[in-house]
Amino acid sequence: MGRVFGRKLAEELGVSYYDKQLISEISKHADLDETYVSGTLEKGIDVYPVQCGVTFSQPRYNKQMMEVIVAQCEILKQLAKKGDCVIVGRSADAILADLNPFNVFVYADMATRVARCKERETSQKPLSDRETERLIKEIDKGREKSHALFTSKKWGEKEGYHLMLNTTDCDVEVLAKSIAKYIDAWFTAKGL
Amino acid sequence: MGRVFGRKLAEELGVSYYDKQLISEISKHADLDETYVSGTLEKGIDVYPVQCGVTFSQPRYNKQMMEVIVAQCEILKQLAKKGDCVIVGRSADAILADLNPFNVFVYADMATRVARCKERETSQKPLSDRETERLIKEIDKGREKSHALFTSKKWGEKEGYHLMLNTTDCDVEVLAKSIAKYIDAWFTAKGL
Repeated sequence: MGRVFGRKLAEELGVSYYDKQLISEISKHADLDETYVSGTLEKGIDVYPVQCGVTFSQPRYNKQMMEVIVAQCEILKQLAKKGDCVIVGRSADAILADLNPFNVFVYADMATRVARCKERETSQKPLSDRETERLIKEIDKGREKSHALFTSKKWGEKEGYHLMLNTTDCDVEVLAKSIAKYIDAWFTAKGL
Repeated sequence: MGRVFGRKLAEELGVSYYDKQLISEISKHADLDETYVSGTLEKGIDVYPVQCGVTFSQPRYNKQMMEVIVAQCEILKQLAKKGDCVIVGRSADAILADLNPFNVFVYADMATRVARCKERETSQKPLSDRETERLIKEIDKGREKSHALFTSKKWGEKEGYHLMLNTTDCDVEVLAKSIAKYIDAWFTAKGL
C-alpha cells in the first residue's frame, strides 16, 4: 500500500515519483544483475557481521554488496538533485537526511497487510495466510537491516519520521489527497 | 504541546475540547481531593503490583485509586455521549475504544520538549535541562503505566494510533489546521 499511497501523493503534489524502477537504475549504475540487486536490497545487509568462534573467515558482505549500497546512495542523490520528488523505500529518509526531506511512515495492522498481499497475489499456488505473514515479517526484517546501515534511527519508530500514517481500513486516495495538503502547509510554514 | 494542538484542533473541527478540567470532573465524581486525583493519574498505577518476598501485604493500589480509575472511565463516557469532541490524554483512546475514536499521538524530540517546558516554567527556581528531561521521562512513564490499565496496545507505539505527528520545530497552528482537514476527510470516507 506504501507504493499506491506514494504514487498518489506524488500526483497530488505534482512531483516525480520513484519506487521499484530504482532497482534497475541501481543495477545499471553498479553494472550488476537486476535480480541480484533486488535480492540484496530485499534481504537487507547486516552492518556488523557476527563471526563468533570463526577466525580468518570471509566477512558476510562482499564487494558486490558494497557496490549495490554505493550505487543506491549515488542514484538517490542524483534523483533528489533533479527536483522535488516522492521516493518509496530504499532508506531514502536516511540517505538523503542532509536535504531535510519530509519523512512519512505508512503502516497497517497485520490482518490488513496479509489481505492486501493476497489481493495482489498472481501465483498459481497462492501462499496461505500464515505463509504470507511470515513473508511480510521477513521483508520488514530486511528493510530494518538495510535502514540500519545508514542511520541510528530505527526503521518504523516514530523518532525518525515527521508523520506516521495508519492505513488500516483506509481509502488511500483520500489519505494521499489530504496528506499532500498537510505536507504543502508544512513546507510553506517553514518558508520552503 | 499536545494540549495547544488539541485545543486548536477542536476549534478547527468545531467540537468540544477537554483536557486538564477532566481532573476536577473526576475529583467531583469520585468525591476525592483534586490534588490526590491529579497525583494518582500523573504517577500512573501499576497493573500488576510486584510483591516479591512480602506476604499478606497491602496491594500497591488502594480503594481510592480504584475510585479514581472508575470515575475517569465514567466521566469520559459521559462526555463522549454529549457529542463529538477532542480529548487530550486520560487514556481516552483506550477507554473509549468501542466508540472507534480517531487516535492521534503527538510527539517531539527531547530537546524540543525540554525547551517547550522551560518556556512555560513559572517557578522562581527553574529546573535545569537535565532535571526537566528527568521530569518529562517520569511523566511519560506514568502515562504509559496508566494507559496499560485499559489496553494491551502500548502508549506511544504506532499500532494504537491512526496518526502520529512529530511536532519538532513545527508551528502547531498550521499542523492543527491541516490535520483537522485530514480527520474530516477520514470520517467522510468512512461515511461517518
